[in-house]
Amino acid sequence: MNPYNKEYAIARDENDPLKQFRTRFVNPDPELLYLDGNSLGMLPADTARHMDQVINNEWGKGLIRSWNTGWYERSAELAAQLAPLIGAQPDEVMIADSTSVNLFKLAYAALHHQKGRKGIVSDQLNFPSDIYVLQGLVELFGNRHKLRMAQSADELSVTMEELEKHLSDDTALLTLSYVVFKSAFMYDMKAVTALAHEKGAMVLWDLSHAAGAVPVHLNESNADLAIGCTYKYLNGGPGAPAFLYVRKDLQEKLKSPIQGWFGQQNPFAFNMEYQPATGINRFLAGTPPLLSVSALEPALQLMNEAGIQNLRKKSILQTNYLISLAEENLVPLGFALASPKDEEQRGSHVSIRHPEAYRICKALIDPHTGRKAVIPDFRDPDNIRLGVAPLYNTFLDIFEAVMELKLIVEQELYNKFPLTRETVT
Amino acid sequence: MNPYNKEYAIARDENDPLKQFRTRFVNPDPELLYLDGNSLGMLPADTARHMDQVINNEWGKGLIRSWNTGWYERSAELAAQLAPLIGAQPDEVMIADSTSVNLFKLAYAALHHQKGRKGIVSDQLNFPSDIYVLQGLVELFGNRHKLRMAQSADELSVTMEELEKHLSDDTALLTLSYVVFKSAFMYDMKAVTALAHEKGAMVLWDLSHAAGAVPVHLNESNADLAIGCTYKYLNGGPGAPAFLYVRKDLQEKLKSPIQGWFGQQNPFAFNMEYQPATGINRFLAGTPPLLSVSALEPALQLMNEAGIQNLRKKSILQTNYLISLAEENLVPLGFALASPKDEEQRGSHVSIRHPEAYRICKALIDPHTGRKAVIPDFRDPDNIRLGVAPLYNTFLDIFEAVMELKLIVEQELYNKFPLTRETVT
Repeated sequence: MNPYNKEYAIARDENDPLKQFRTRFVNPDPELLYLDGNSLGMLPADTARHMDQVINNEWGKGLIRSWNTGWYERSAELAAQLAPLIGAQPDEVMIADSTSVNLFKLAYAALHHQKGRKGIVSDQLNFPSDIYVLQGLVELFGNRHKLRMAQSADELSVTMEELEKHLSDDTALLTLSYVVFKSAFMYDMKAVTALAHEKGAMVLWDLSHAAGAVPVHLNESNADLAIGCTYKYLNGGPGAPAFLYVRKDLQEKLKSPIQGWFGQQNPFAFNMEYQPATGINRFLAGTPPLLSVSALEPALQLMNEAGIQNLRKKSILQTNYLISLAEENLVPLGFALASPKDEEQRGSHVSIRHPEAYRICKALIDPHTGRKAVIPDFRDPDNIRLGVAPLYNTFLDIFEAVMELKLIVEQELYNKFPLTRETVT
Repeated sequence: MNPYNKEYAIARDENDPLKQFRTRFVNPDPELLYLDGNSLGMLPADTARHMDQVINNEWGKGLIRSWNTGWYERSAELAAQLAPLIGAQPDEVMIADSTSVNLFKLAYAALHHQKGRKGIVSDQLNFPSDIYVLQGLVELFGNRHKLRMAQSADELSVTMEELEKHLSDDTALLTLSYVVFKSAFMYDMKAVTALAHEKGAMVLWDLSHAAGAVPVHLNESNADLAIGCTYKYLNGGPGAPAFLYVRKDLQEKLKSPIQGWFGQQNPFAFNMEYQPATGINRFLAGTPPLLSVSALEPALQLMNEAGIQNLRKKSILQTNYLISLAEENLVPLGFALASPKDEEQRGSHVSIRHPEAYRICKALIDPHTGRKAVIPDFRDPDNIRLGVAPLYNTFLDIFEAVMELKLIVEQELYNKFPLTRETVT
């Protein structure tokens, strides 16, 4: 069968052992190709039903009593469901706050623990707001730390040699995105962690673009700390609460800078002296936003039901398929692949570049074409990210999206959009 | 008419100009008297409908596009609806994070701004976790600050003289709960703020037990900073996102310690150097939990529709009524009033004390009595808080709750409950 035609895509979908999971999501519009699960995951059908129950029964009927019949434990219980997806023990993970706040808490904790050391290492490919948090911490600690950024020679990836150049016996913390947001480059977590540990540095991984997309092996890699969001591949909903991971043996040694209500040993004793909770709970701050927290439950169940190994297997097939279609159809039109070709070094999205990327995205999303709309996301200056969420994306989604890209560039359909930038997804 | 009988309560309800608002809430159980709106407000009927729309349409159908059609602005728009309830300008308030995290951010900002000063003043009646956050900040700033706690002679209130004793030219920050959590004592915000300003100290008010319960006059009092929760009298739902207030002229002078994604000037430029947003936005950290944020919309609309002045008027009538019933029926049975008698110094809950308070609460809540269950909350060691939420509580609720308390103590019905403490709301 010709791998570049539609029948091939349809056949692949028919043979997909995970195909039934697509029906477990609310499908917004059959004329929409949603390739942005790397920004906001789709709505699981069970979530809509579950939230109705949480709002009407737990809040409406149970009222304050629901704190004692499930709400207090909910963040920890959902963290335990997340744990196997990231290779951690249930008592090493907690649902809490936002990614930025969790990064702040854990990076603070690491720098405080490693007081004698003044180096912080990250890389040029990390998500900018992770760098903002680190810049804020440098200032907070009195501008005595030096933030060093490993560079990327190819704008896709960072080599071990480059990382090693920036690490020294003075490095307190190395913090990286496990899967980087633009290119989807994925580090060798075990090797990088070992390299940092050799120098005595702690390692904090941002798993935002990895959790639910690739199996993460925090324990096996002996990672110290991790954080991540749950609204991308984990389908927790817009701004869904984030997670944090602290390796078991470190928990009692580290402290959160935010000594809040939920991180106290026994909040209802109303003592006036803060006593951190034992275990992972000490990294909680205030009362969790229970509606948003609760939306994670059906989403994580769905993930565990599908199995992260199965999802990864499908994701690799799909991203390889996307790359081969792009090479056949898009590269000749001036696109360049902006993700690693080696599947072992790639997460579950594929970036392509084009000088007209901004207007091409506008044309893809435009609902007035009479064709299917495609939702990717655009990242300055010339990057189109195509997210593959194996839980609901089909091979046909990928085929049709590539054909749309081809058509738009061949016929220069992007020309009708202004060059002026507005926010695109 | 005898003010101590049921007919009187019913007549008061009939004449209540706000009586229709009770029907705007999901009523969990006609056999339940809910006097705990000071811990978790009831579910507005509109909220259940609104959340269905947010989940199914905005998330399910709109997907990532909903960020550009309302989600980005939502926290600020809801903050603007909250602003009139606390006497602030719309651009001085933001919905964000939890109360603990907001207190951390703003208290940090104040201490950083007032670098030369080493005093922090609070009081013994403040909510313990506010003190935990301050203790954490003292440590974070290198244990160079001294946290001084104004004392309460009567366990109800703190005098201006007592506050003055702790303030000095070295005080960086005075932070208090405007309405304190146990006794409902309410400070004179204007006088206290002026006193602190005389010494050059900044003032941060925790409005958690005040917002939606009493009109707050932040601007009129020239308050510097404020924070508060939205799940009590504001009916935002369990763990609903908190708010923060920074007076306009201070916004550009202060910085948040958490330099997150949403506090950046232009997040989508993906610059690698943090540039704080102008205005109140710079005090945002990460992506807000949109489902929980959205639940605030119908709740705040309801508040503004009723009008905070009208609510306060009714609240005063109701808390005075509760106190007079308690004096007639409960004080002779060994109860003591644990809230100020003067309505000008009292929020919207009334605390009573009894040596058997813990077991009395157990008996009140017990659903197996064949009588109406009453939900108050219990605060160690001997405090029963009766929250009056004028938006939905009736005079009859209050009458019947007092009669239940009377019956339980007269007949020693609490004796069947063990003395061993578990968590009680």
